[in-house]
Amino acid sequence: MRAAVRGRADPDEVRARIIEVAEVLFRSIGYQKTSMADIAAELKMSPANLYRFFPSKLALVEQICARVTGEIQAVAWRIARSNGSASEKLERFVVELHRHNKTVLLKDRRLHDMVSIAMVENWQSIERHIEQMRGVVESIIREGVESGEFKVADPAAMAHVVKSSFVAFLHPQLLEQCFHEDMEPLARGVARLVVKGLRAGD
Amino acid sequence: MRAAVRGRADPDEVRARIIEVAEVLFRSIGYQKTSMADIAAELKMSPANLYRFFPSKLALVEQICARVTGEIQAVAWRIARSNGSASEKLERFVVELHRHNKTVLLKDRRLHDMVSIAMVENWQSIERHIEQMRGVVESIIREGVESGEFKVADPAAMAHVVKSSFVAFLHPQLLEQCFHEDMEPLARGVARLVVKGLRAGD
Repeated sequence: MRAAVRGRADPDEVRARIIEVAEVLFRSIGYQKTSMADIAAELKMSPANLYRFFPSKLALVEQICARVTGEIQAVAWRIARSNGSASEKLERFVVELHRHNKTVLLKDRRLHDMVSIAMVENWQSIERHIEQMRGVVESIIREGVESGEFKVADPAAMAHVVKSSFVAFLHPQLLEQCFHEDMEPLARGVARLVVKGLRAGD
Repeated sequence: MRAAVRGRADPDEVRARIIEVAEVLFRSIGYQKTSMADIAAELKMSPANLYRFFPSKLALVEQICARVTGEIQAVAWRIARSNGSASEKLERFVVELHRHNKTVLLKDRRLHDMVSIAMVENWQSIERHIEQMRGVVESIIREGVESGEFKVADPAAMAHVVKSSFVAFLHPQLLEQCFHEDMEPLARGVARLVVKGLRAGD
């Protein structure tokens, strides 16, 4: 009996399956037009059972967002831990993440809508993501200071500054506006100017 | 007779009066909820007469946008033409325009909505504005090159780069998201880092 199987299913597996189905529906029908009842129906669950796992659509979107931002953070840390000078890593940080965000967030406009909703409704999780990304930049700057490449008195504060100068190439809403432009040369230009500034010291 | 007076009125004055009334209505009722009929009624004009001056609400919003962006450009050029080194001017450019945009665009949320609509519907006029602002940055960079302050081979291309690094502090949608944060120290930090980079040369 299917009901019995579902009854005995691992709750983590059920949660993962719910998120997967919700994402498919959000992407194909759109976040606003998908109801919790639609998701439950697709999973052959009762809505009441679905609500035991996730109290709202927003809770589901948070999970999807966590996956998307987690992937971005993984790309960022991979760059920070790769071989090369701190200057090269900073340039790769902005260029490769620009490319990644453009591909992942915008290839599917509906996913982008979902992230935009999350940015408004669930600012805290986005703040955590921004803080993580700032942490990656700080780690690259610290490496540059240790190797004698950069002259920076306060790497944590400078990470904020450097990250702000990269916003045009990483922020989903701005990427959307400039989607058809090739912004890579400009991103590279900003990275190189910033690196010169970091090398020059105070 | 009022109708006769209006009939003889200077068309430029009529246009100015229409824009003024439209802005008041857009601000108080909101852009979406204001119709051309509302604007005509407020002006005691027939809708047909209003349409002779402006073919659509969007045409009206374009005029209001042109005024707002014109004011921003005036602030920018005033900074470029003021006394001081090119480095000081670049810092004032981002800090003072950040303050100006925050005050003018966001003190009134409805005006901001209007500008957002214009940014989507009328991208060309925004492009022109962005180009104007890039021109101001280029003029400051050229001045710095002439005075020996900056070492830059291509001031026009570098103006693009520098302007991109300032986006976080000037873009209306980003200002909206960070409205309650004091971003001035960060704006100053980016300007100083950029100036160091411009001084360091290639």
